[in-house]
Amino acid sequence: MDRIKTIEFKDNILHLIDQRKLPLSYQIFQCTSYRDVDFAIKDMVVRGAPAIGVAGAYGVVLAAKEFIDCDRDDFLIHMDEALEILNRSRPTAVNLMWAINKMRSIIEENKDLPPADLYDKLRQEADRMLKQDIDTNRKMGKVGNEIVNEKATILTHCNTGALATAGFGTALGVIREAFYSGKDIFVYADETRPRLQGARLTAWELLEEGIPCKLIADSAAATLIRDKKIDLILVGADRIALNGDTANKIGTFMLSVLAKEYEVPFYVVAPTSTIDFDIETGDEIIIEERDNSEVTHMEGIRIAPEGIDVYNPAFDVTPHENITGIITEEGIIKSPFRENILKLK
Amino acid sequence: MDRIKTIEFKDNILHLIDQRKLPLSYQIFQCTSYRDVDFAIKDMVVRGAPAIGVAGAYGVVLAAKEFIDCDRDDFLIHMDEALEILNRSRPTAVNLMWAINKMRSIIEENKDLPPADLYDKLRQEADRMLKQDIDTNRKMGKVGNEIVNEKATILTHCNTGALATAGFGTALGVIREAFYSGKDIFVYADETRPRLQGARLTAWELLEEGIPCKLIADSAAATLIRDKKIDLILVGADRIALNGDTANKIGTFMLSVLAKEYEVPFYVVAPTSTIDFDIETGDEIIIEERDNSEVTHMEGIRIAPEGIDVYNPAFDVTPHENITGIITEEGIIKSPFRENILKLK
Repeated sequence: MDRIKTIEFKDNILHLIDQRKLPLSYQIFQCTSYRDVDFAIKDMVVRGAPAIGVAGAYGVVLAAKEFIDCDRDDFLIHMDEALEILNRSRPTAVNLMWAINKMRSIIEENKDLPPADLYDKLRQEADRMLKQDIDTNRKMGKVGNEIVNEKATILTHCNTGALATAGFGTALGVIREAFYSGKDIFVYADETRPRLQGARLTAWELLEEGIPCKLIADSAAATLIRDKKIDLILVGADRIALNGDTANKIGTFMLSVLAKEYEVPFYVVAPTSTIDFDIETGDEIIIEERDNSEVTHMEGIRIAPEGIDVYNPAFDVTPHENITGIITEEGIIKSPFRENILKLK
Repeated sequence: MDRIKTIEFKDNILHLIDQRKLPLSYQIFQCTSYRDVDFAIKDMVVRGAPAIGVAGAYGVVLAAKEFIDCDRDDFLIHMDEALEILNRSRPTAVNLMWAINKMRSIIEENKDLPPADLYDKLRQEADRMLKQDIDTNRKMGKVGNEIVNEKATILTHCNTGALATAGFGTALGVIREAFYSGKDIFVYADETRPRLQGARLTAWELLEEGIPCKLIADSAAATLIRDKKIDLILVGADRIALNGDTANKIGTFMLSVLAKEYEVPFYVVAPTSTIDFDIETGDEIIIEERDNSEVTHMEGIRIAPEGIDVYNPAFDVTPHENITGIITEEGIIKSPFRENILKLK
């Protein structure tokens, strides 16, 4: 596979595959300022917790470039503002905060350096994050592949592939690795309303790879699970609390309840950077509510009547007791989650 | 409320509100032959188990009109073919078979009459069915309203309103009755992928009535149920087996699992004509699979990549143990379902 270049930084421009346009058209969205990156994250040009972490880091690099000629004090003031704006672009995924905090600490550790040198350090860190994300995903793929049976039928939700990360993917990375390793797997991909990341992005990645699959409406998963047509459920994560409670795309929690009821293994696949060591449980996770138009419109066409009100949470929280294990680059975390997660700190 | 005329027969033309076009435009689809009715049912111009029962009956009336000048033997042969075609137009809803069987028995009981007289009898029966469906729905509304609390927040799935019936509705009929009776209710309507009957039709009916409501993606229901924001779930039915197992729109089963897990009352609302006394359990119900394009396209625009395969069942089966009660025009059926359903025979 030629790497899908979800995020690429060259000539001081951040190039993002415009995920609002896939699969109908393949377009590159160019960010020349951190405000462009803020917009790209908000509007979901780039999405997926690991991907927005790396994109956010490059946003900081673009800010450093913009203010490189300022004197050191002004530079630090401007950078502080940029960090704040980027940090707030989406509230649920912890990877973004994690990446922004890393960049902030580099600025703090090197605040006596001239802006141009600081820019170099930030650029190096963002490049390292991008490379590390891909390496981490490949490691998770290998760790996760151990629990995939030879002829497994796997259900996945949303997009957790190359497009959701710097490359390879988390849950879809495990599916990739299982397929590459020669296992005769079959994948059901939830379409994932309202943004249809499953129909648009996961289906596209699976077709590109030639992995046998079918697309389903989210609500069709329940019967497949009950009828033992699903051997394994793999999902990503946007934030994991200390007790293992996991925020992920809306619809994940529903799958976890069905998985528990019908005894289907349910695994979260996420890098350890998705763990928020500052929160005890999922109750503390802020759930982003997005615009009504995501539900009332499709491709700009109204599908619901004018004037209808909408409740549109982007994520839900799966309680740790519904999770069989969390597949990370460091191994698989199982119950007792709190104890085992704290070992990673 | 001026009655929403989902189905109206006048001047020997069956007038159907074209439910493929709502809520963007209000158009009437005219059927001048039984083949038009067959198409209208297949393509979901008219949908909803009770509505397609009544529409099918008028299809038989149109066939009788078409062959009214044939001699008696030819008339009966043609009618037999029309009955068969209409009976097969959709496989899951039993109300269609029930209505067609009623029409068939009228033909059999009166086969010695001239075609013109038989036409009159069939027309009378179809008119009676239409009127009876509305009366039945109003009765179910009153029966069901007894279990709706003063300030209930109700979740509903698909469209079970005036548009799914000859008028008033089944599950949405109970909601109507509760609202008319002055209860301060609030409704969450699942959008109901893939055909979006919730977004297109239920939202439209709720807005027309002024019933406070919000539209949600199907997968958003789970968190609302867990968080005790739903007091009551009301759904319709396409076929009910003797043991209470209920086929209804895809997504219903998922809600029932959540309702059971989080102890939210889950009621099916359906006329007794939805009970199939010939089948013992839901395992015997044929589940219609519909075209891939319902999932891959929206308003004619492709939303999933070219070449993706799809699994698109239109219904699922909710096991009786997940059902709190079945609200019918004869009262509420509760466990033991088989015993209580047989009392209705």
